[in-house]
Amino acid sequence: MTDTEGRSSFVVKAFAWAGLLGPALALAADTPPIAIVIHGGAGVINRSEMTPARELEYKAGLEAARDAGYAVLERGGSALDAVTAAVHSMEDNPLFNAGKGAVLNHLGVAELDSSIMDGKTLRAGAVAGVQHVKNPVELARAVMEKSPHVLIAGAGAEEFALEQGLTMVPNSYFRTEPRVRALEKALRNTNPGSALNMSAPAAGLDDAKGTVGAVALDRDGNLAAATSTGGMTNKRPGRIGDSPLIGAGTYANNASCAVSATGDGEFFIRAVVAHDVCALVEYKRLPLDAAAKEVIHTKIESMHATGGVIALDTSGHIVMDFNSEGMFRASRDSLGRRDVAIYGNR
Amino acid sequence: MTDTEGRSSFVVKAFAWAGLLGPALALAADTPPIAIVIHGGAGVINRSEMTPARELEYKAGLEAARDAGYAVLERGGSALDAVTAAVHSMEDNPLFNAGKGAVLNHLGVAELDSSIMDGKTLRAGAVAGVQHVKNPVELARAVMEKSPHVLIAGAGAEEFALEQGLTMVPNSYFRTEPRVRALEKALRNTNPGSALNMSAPAAGLDDAKGTVGAVALDRDGNLAAATSTGGMTNKRPGRIGDSPLIGAGTYANNASCAVSATGDGEFFIRAVVAHDVCALVEYKRLPLDAAAKEVIHTKIESMHATGGVIALDTSGHIVMDFNSEGMFRASRDSLGRRDVAIYGNR
Repeated sequence: MTDTEGRSSFVVKAFAWAGLLGPALALAADTPPIAIVIHGGAGVINRSEMTPARELEYKAGLEAARDAGYAVLERGGSALDAVTAAVHSMEDNPLFNAGKGAVLNHLGVAELDSSIMDGKTLRAGAVAGVQHVKNPVELARAVMEKSPHVLIAGAGAEEFALEQGLTMVPNSYFRTEPRVRALEKALRNTNPGSALNMSAPAAGLDDAKGTVGAVALDRDGNLAAATSTGGMTNKRPGRIGDSPLIGAGTYANNASCAVSATGDGEFFIRAVVAHDVCALVEYKRLPLDAAAKEVIHTKIESMHATGGVIALDTSGHIVMDFNSEGMFRASRDSLGRRDVAIYGNR
Repeated sequence: MTDTEGRSSFVVKAFAWAGLLGPALALAADTPPIAIVIHGGAGVINRSEMTPARELEYKAGLEAARDAGYAVLERGGSALDAVTAAVHSMEDNPLFNAGKGAVLNHLGVAELDSSIMDGKTLRAGAVAGVQHVKNPVELARAVMEKSPHVLIAGAGAEEFALEQGLTMVPNSYFRTEPRVRALEKALRNTNPGSALNMSAPAAGLDDAKGTVGAVALDRDGNLAAATSTGGMTNKRPGRIGDSPLIGAGTYANNASCAVSATGDGEFFIRAVVAHDVCALVEYKRLPLDAAAKEVIHTKIESMHATGGVIALDTSGHIVMDFNSEGMFRASRDSLGRRDVAIYGNR
């Protein structure tokens, strides 16, 4: 999974640990670590569309989002600000299924979900089914900080967005040509008389299972997590997946870890994936990687579902694990780790 | 908490355990237990409105719901059917904040949320913000059984309800005189220019924090949980609380327990209350009552929030715990337990 840069940074880290690289790096290893991990969705990646040029575009998008978040941490900013910046960047990038470039529901409308959580205070905010808010993660953040609520859906959430002065856009802002084609393909494969099949997790979904998310650890030792998505292509209007649900798609608690999930949302809700990873760490004392493995490779796998998680703890342990063919992902920390990857695992 | 009937049944149980009451009761103790526990909300109970006559009405409503669920279990029905029946009964009862008699949002509209979960398969269904579905728990059940989704909100959920042939009603069906007065009182205490205070958890809320829920254990050893609510008086349209969120307001897993929660919804979401109780049982090996106590009396209490949970495991252990002044609650099992209570604790 680690690219060349990542491997060389591992060597640097090994030397730094051994104290062989002089006082500057030894000092870096002594100061509290900062770290950010992001994902841009997990699933079966359509190899026919994934040309080398396209792969470079995705990697550039992931690196830009990761570095936007890392820059916040580096200048002493909060984990909350870092995950907001990283997710905002991917929402603005039409390659990812969140914000601009979100997949379309059965009626051809982009319905967006997002959530954010502060690991220090356990405060959280989330929105579901918004259609005109340019950056749903900013609205989730406003729900957390400016309302007494955690989750607001639909028109009520947009009313709140207007009160808060957030940037509003017509729904057409989100729509891109590839998402229109994906919906058309899904609709062709659907029996029009069958309301039940209409949003079955089948045709055209695998290549549009994207969701974006970020977890971060700041200089003060605080964790945060955020997730944002357009959901599933051809979804039933009003369908809410795991992304905006605190505990399912997003969870952060300094006592255990910060997690953002992506995958078959319905199964991730039933398994309460993000909170379950944290609970295995806090109550069963599993190492972070073992906790993520247990949830994704045992529980989610046994439900015949796929997806992945990114996770981070206050020691700066980074986990990016999935049971799908690939997961768009990237990470960076103050010990020199800096990677970006699509296929493979761990 | 236990009423006279409950105390005498405890004596019966003690004799049965000692094998002193003959083969019939000894047999009853050997067969797998069946049990149901329900709640009708937790909070500060307005003593000026809670006359002895009113208290009897509440208790009669709780007993009717409990016994509707227990009757299902007694004739060999499933835990899912039992919790559906019990919650349906309280949704139809205008005393409780769910279905008919639900509290009203800022615009005077009833917006209903419900969820249900099957502890055997971890299947789950939920709806949020429906305004015209007579029994939201039936719609949550239909989402679980007839759709590929777990959570559907708003108009999309009502479209699905119509497809499924559920009973639809005008929003006025839900509205009752006491709820209209409670909203008027809340609006009087609100600065009309302040959008932020509009749904602050303040005026008129304490006596309308109700939510209804049920957990059950059937003859086959399967658990189920369901929850239904109108949310908070004067809530912002679109606000979703913990009740329809799998993991927060409702969770069921045969490997640990079934839980339905009621209380300050925003805090219950942040603490992922229902799943947390189950995680403490499964991962930290806490007894069910200690797990509920940890979540309600330590975690929720430390957030300065109030509420409670009902919980049940496959051995038939019953827990009804809360840190508020009271919680409307009742339980019944095949070992002879049969109680109903409002105040006190445990």
